[in-house]
Amino acid sequence: MEETEAKTCEGGDAHYWYHGDKDAIVRRLKRIEGQVRGLQRMVDDDKYCIDILTQISAVNRGLQAAAVNLLEGHLAHCVADAQTSGDAQEAEAKVKEASAAVARLLRS
Amino acid sequence: MEETEAKTCEGGDAHYWYHGDKDAIVRRLKRIEGQVRGLQRMVDDDKYCIDILTQISAVNRGLQAAAVNLLEGHLAHCVADAQTSGDAQEAEAKVKEASAAVARLLRS
Amino acid sequence: MEETEAKTCEGGDAHYWYHGDKDAIVRRLKRIEGQVRGLQRMVDDDKYCIDILTQISAVNRGLQAAAVNLLEGHLAHCVADAQTSGDAQEAEAKVKEASAAVARLLRS
Amino acid sequence: MEETEAKTCEGGDAHYWYHGDKDAIVRRLKRIEGQVRGLQRMVDDDKYCIDILTQISAVNRGLQAAAVNLLEGHLAHCVADAQTSGDAQEAEAKVKEASAAVARLLRS
Repeated sequence: MEETEAKTCEGGDAHYWYHGDKDAIVRRLKRIEGQVRGLQRMVDDDKYCIDILTQISAVNRGLQAAAVNLLEGHLAHCVADAQTSGDAQEAEAKVKEASAAVARLLRS
Repeated sequence: MEETEAKTCEGGDAHYWYHGDKDAIVRRLKRIEGQVRGLQRMVDDDKYCIDILTQISAVNRGLQAAAVNLLEGHLAHCVADAQTSGDAQEAEAKVKEASAAVARLLRS
Repeated sequence: MEETEAKTCEGGDAHYWYHGDKDAIVRRLKRIEGQVRGLQRMVDDDKYCIDILTQISAVNRGLQAAAVNLLEGHLAHCVADAQTSGDAQEAEAKVKEASAAVARLLRS
Repeated sequence: MEETEAKTCEGGDAHYWYHGDKDAIVRRLKRIEGQVRGLQRMVDDDKYCIDILTQISAVNRGLQAAAVNLLEGHLAHCVADAQTSGDAQEAEAKVKEASAAVARLLRS
């Protein structure tokens, strides 16, 4: 693992693992943004509450799919980089951080 | 319960229970839309995956708060209308429908 | 609504709405208890983590089905009783209480 | 990573990563089992539905804490083993498998 790539997982302006998937993730988020705008129209148009709730469930599922997508890339790149770096403390920190992110998603 | 009010809970262009709360709900959804646009910027700006996941959790919580808000109004108006209408079948149908919507939210 | 039935929704030793469904709910909870004991055996027998996680998801789904079942009965009986009682404050309190319970389930 | 240890992450009767944490995880699951038995008593004793729903939320949170615990160990051991093994296909498979398990937990 060369230094530049390792750095990308620390943040900063470097090329992230999801650089390649960026377009797909942004497209997915744009679709979710459109769905949230659709929710506003549903309320504006006095649509039936239950239909709005059903649509909120769909948006939540879309966000969770995006989250799992990001998590998968994070495990495959940033966490893997830490684990192959030989720095056990850094590897443990990355795993704890990813697990805490999952715990937050589960509570949300 | 007069017919017109009962009809409002069926959909159509009538005044919904959330007519009064409409502005608050739309404002909340606009804030969520802004957060989803923020997520796109985070990906575009190569922000750290974990920070994006944390922000997704926040958006999910916002959507769930909106859902509970809508559900509360639905129970207080549409379901209550059905239950005070004396039509037991309609009352049961409304309760089943609301419970199914909660089940969908729980799975999302 | 006669007093005795209204009281049952306040708690105490009265006959609850789920009196009739009690056996079904207890049976479901017994099955969930058996699944949790199965989880302990899986850990004891060094089963694969992912299989244990899959089984935890199944137990969670079982608990949520039980929760939706209880909620449905609660809306159909306790909340309906409050809404047909003509006591608007009590009706509002019951709806708020049920919505708060849903919010807790969504965060868990 | 010697072969035997790598094998432990595939299942079988070998020593798992959670061998050391086994007692803690089993203790946690025993506590959850006790809570589920408590739920049965609550239904048997005609406790108030909302109190039972609150307790179901607590059991769900306990199960999710156990799940995050198992996931953290799985990432730190089984997934890490695959990632340091140099077998890119195996590493990718492990990451996909763990992400799919998280997706199942999020939907439950």
